[in-house]
Amino acid sequence: MPNRPSNSAAYGMKINLHIPNIPGSFMRIAKAVADANATIDIVEMLSDNGPFKKRCVHINCNSIEHEKEVVRVIAELEGVQIDEIIDKTIEYHINGKMEIKGFSPLVSKSDLSIAYTPGVARPCKVIAADKEQAYNLTCKGNTVAIVTDGTAVLGLGDIGPEAALPVMEGKCLLFKEFAGVDAVPICVATKDPDEIVKLVKFLAPTYGGINLEDISAPRCFEIENRLKQELDIPVFHDDQHGTAIVTLAALYNALKVTNKKITDIKAVVCGLGSAGTACAKMFHNAGLSNLIGVDKFGAINSKTDCGDNPAFKWFQENTNPNNESGTLDEVLKGADLFLGVSAPGILSIDAVKSMNENAIIFAMANPVPEIMPELASEFVGVMATGRSDYPNQINNVLAFPGLFRGALDCRATAITEGMKLAAAQAIADIVGEDLATNYIIPSPLDPAVAQKVAQAVKTQAINEGVGQIHPTPAPTFNKLEF
Amino acid sequence: MPNRPSNSAAYGMKINLHIPNIPGSFMRIAKAVADANATIDIVEMLSDNGPFKKRCVHINCNSIEHEKEVVRVIAELEGVQIDEIIDKTIEYHINGKMEIKGFSPLVSKSDLSIAYTPGVARPCKVIAADKEQAYNLTCKGNTVAIVTDGTAVLGLGDIGPEAALPVMEGKCLLFKEFAGVDAVPICVATKDPDEIVKLVKFLAPTYGGINLEDISAPRCFEIENRLKQELDIPVFHDDQHGTAIVTLAALYNALKVTNKKITDIKAVVCGLGSAGTACAKMFHNAGLSNLIGVDKFGAINSKTDCGDNPAFKWFQENTNPNNESGTLDEVLKGADLFLGVSAPGILSIDAVKSMNENAIIFAMANPVPEIMPELASEFVGVMATGRSDYPNQINNVLAFPGLFRGALDCRATAITEGMKLAAAQAIADIVGEDLATNYIIPSPLDPAVAQKVAQAVKTQAINEGVGQIHPTPAPTFNKLEF
Repeated sequence: MPNRPSNSAAYGMKINLHIPNIPGSFMRIAKAVADANATIDIVEMLSDNGPFKKRCVHINCNSIEHEKEVVRVIAELEGVQIDEIIDKTIEYHINGKMEIKGFSPLVSKSDLSIAYTPGVARPCKVIAADKEQAYNLTCKGNTVAIVTDGTAVLGLGDIGPEAALPVMEGKCLLFKEFAGVDAVPICVATKDPDEIVKLVKFLAPTYGGINLEDISAPRCFEIENRLKQELDIPVFHDDQHGTAIVTLAALYNALKVTNKKITDIKAVVCGLGSAGTACAKMFHNAGLSNLIGVDKFGAINSKTDCGDNPAFKWFQENTNPNNESGTLDEVLKGADLFLGVSAPGILSIDAVKSMNENAIIFAMANPVPEIMPELASEFVGVMATGRSDYPNQINNVLAFPGLFRGALDCRATAITEGMKLAAAQAIADIVGEDLATNYIIPSPLDPAVAQKVAQAVKTQAINEGVGQIHPTPAPTFNKLEF
Repeated sequence: MPNRPSNSAAYGMKINLHIPNIPGSFMRIAKAVADANATIDIVEMLSDNGPFKKRCVHINCNSIEHEKEVVRVIAELEGVQIDEIIDKTIEYHINGKMEIKGFSPLVSKSDLSIAYTPGVARPCKVIAADKEQAYNLTCKGNTVAIVTDGTAVLGLGDIGPEAALPVMEGKCLLFKEFAGVDAVPICVATKDPDEIVKLVKFLAPTYGGINLEDISAPRCFEIENRLKQELDIPVFHDDQHGTAIVTLAALYNALKVTNKKITDIKAVVCGLGSAGTACAKMFHNAGLSNLIGVDKFGAINSKTDCGDNPAFKWFQENTNPNNESGTLDEVLKGADLFLGVSAPGILSIDAVKSMNENAIIFAMANPVPEIMPELASEFVGVMATGRSDYPNQINNVLAFPGLFRGALDCRATAITEGMKLAAAQAIADIVGEDLATNYIIPSPLDPAVAQKVAQAVKTQAINEGVGQIHPTPAPTFNKLEF
């Protein structure tokens, strides 16, 4: 069974306290916090005069209920007075997380006359004569729109465009931090695929790429496919392909560390939503042919009634070469890989034990995986999850910043299967000689990742002819004509 | 007749030169530049060794042709070698003018877990439960979308969304620099008012306001009116109302300095596009009743066939109380105010002389006014233009940053006529005791302007009940419920 979630800064609070200025006072607080299973992170000195000292204690918990329990415990301590309690995550989000800034300040009339009228008319004219110059003379060449309708946000479901905005802002921060890409949230108040496609097409000319995000299936497939066909800039649904790229990178290294070949293994993909389907397709493209898709009703085989679900049909037509049938537990027997993008706790220890030797488990349901690492690890070759508090975190942030950086740098017109495979290989390669069962995938904070991914993606794009090796430069002085 | 435009940084270039390292070398260059009517702005030292010295000379001109002429003149100087020429405005625009940045860097796992998953789910939930919290917990409360279809950009006309982007980026810089407002360009590839209205409505939930920009008439009227009716955030077409606010501010002070009353004067507005119409309406609302609108065919009166032009109909129904008819020159006789938002050089000296004593001329055609200040100034009480190289520059940047700052600060649901009038009065008041015929309007670089405008607009919004004096705050710790 899933154990309790770890304490995290996501449930951190700052408590401003009055404490008696005598030895042992703080120890009592520390003990109370520890007894409540919470973690003291930082203690700031506020003042130290008189019979009381004031401290700001940062405490990490695992939920709001846990935070409130810790507050109650502290409040009951004799002589301790709580002045103020601030939830760190809510405080962090006040006024949003990002801003839009000019590269240079506007301090003189000259600045105004260059950045705005009358000077600004000149780059306008250059672009009016050659739209490609928008890449050179505007923010287009470095800007990606993160488009969502707020229908499938994290595990929260359909929460609408306003409530989706904190996630999109967070994504903008990741784009900028890891790859220097300027990303802008576009949260739309419509769920109609026709309207979303039309809107993105109307907005696309001033962006270098479109990152679709948190749009529910099956609408996300239609929206992505239509936009890919109709736009001349990269369109990428991160929930599908970002997940698939990073999962494939993890698989490459998991196979290496367990000494298996992708062409030889048997794999079971559990949960056939947008992420599971995208992972399966990428695995398939990478050479994994013995792959079985499992949803609530069991394995998809030649007899499955797929209705009008295009994902199920793809599985029926492209996977399960031995036409196996049955439940997850049944088809998992002898498998080398379990990939779960499904539901908490659905994978049993017995099922894990029935797998092939040195099995690979990617249990990516969030926040509670299909099986907890402490239960499965001893019986398998490699264990990975989507969580940051266990080894081998499979996290999209390893892919999307570098992927778009590479695409923008060569003005790619699309993100191809080859570019995605190149990204996966680049992520896997970064691990290098440090490869171990507990280190198959780099840290999401490793700054080398985006750089390496960008380089690999750019090279592949140029090789495939969707990216330019020498994009049109800005006009030199002699070419200015008006 | 209009004289030659002034030299400006907008037509600035940096020329890297090899010059003989002997006395008088640079003087020859300076003389050649001066003889070519160009202006040396800055001279940077690059190196000073051997028989040649290297300098980077910044020279301001008045056009690209002028830049090229100056280059030719310098190239002909004996012993002078040009290494490189860089156009400063084009260089300034390379890679665009703005970026999107996080308020805090992401350096630790804690940062990631607060700014992104899992922590980010918490502000999402708060907003899902109460959309108003998007003002507190996202960028919404400080962000304005600058929406254009690129159909009426500066004097360039319909140049499309890509080519309009440099202007919108420039505007974003002005919003941020003068009022701390984050503005984001939304350049749309459709000219259909229905589509633009629909698109803006889909995007509106995550913005605090909508600034419409450079959309051609009469589409701009329909788009603005429909959005004002259908959205619960401020919608403001700057080309109309920004111009009108600043022009009214200038008029208030021009009347003060010429000792006239708005209710007593006779005014002629020449050029009945979106800006001219908006100015006339605002003047009318400010108490100016004897106002005559003049377009190419002459004054609008009770007999004019207005077709289906709503602006013309407004003039017919609300202005010209004495039902005057005739050409611009004819109705201008005895007038106290000429407001031109029309075409270069259309106002003759004789017409100016026929006006009332201490006449006020606002000649705002850009870049070449209806009459040049050097021709008209001696015959009038006050002379103003839209240009930065003459006194009394009537510039929209005096209004829109502070106006939106004030509206955002009280979460105004609209920008009302009262708020616009308050903005105009605030701009006029800043001039204070320094008021003079050559100083009726503050400098666009004066940082006090946006602050004063914001305060006046906010107060007015609260008084009218469209803004909140105490907007809902972010939830405190005790109110967090999940």
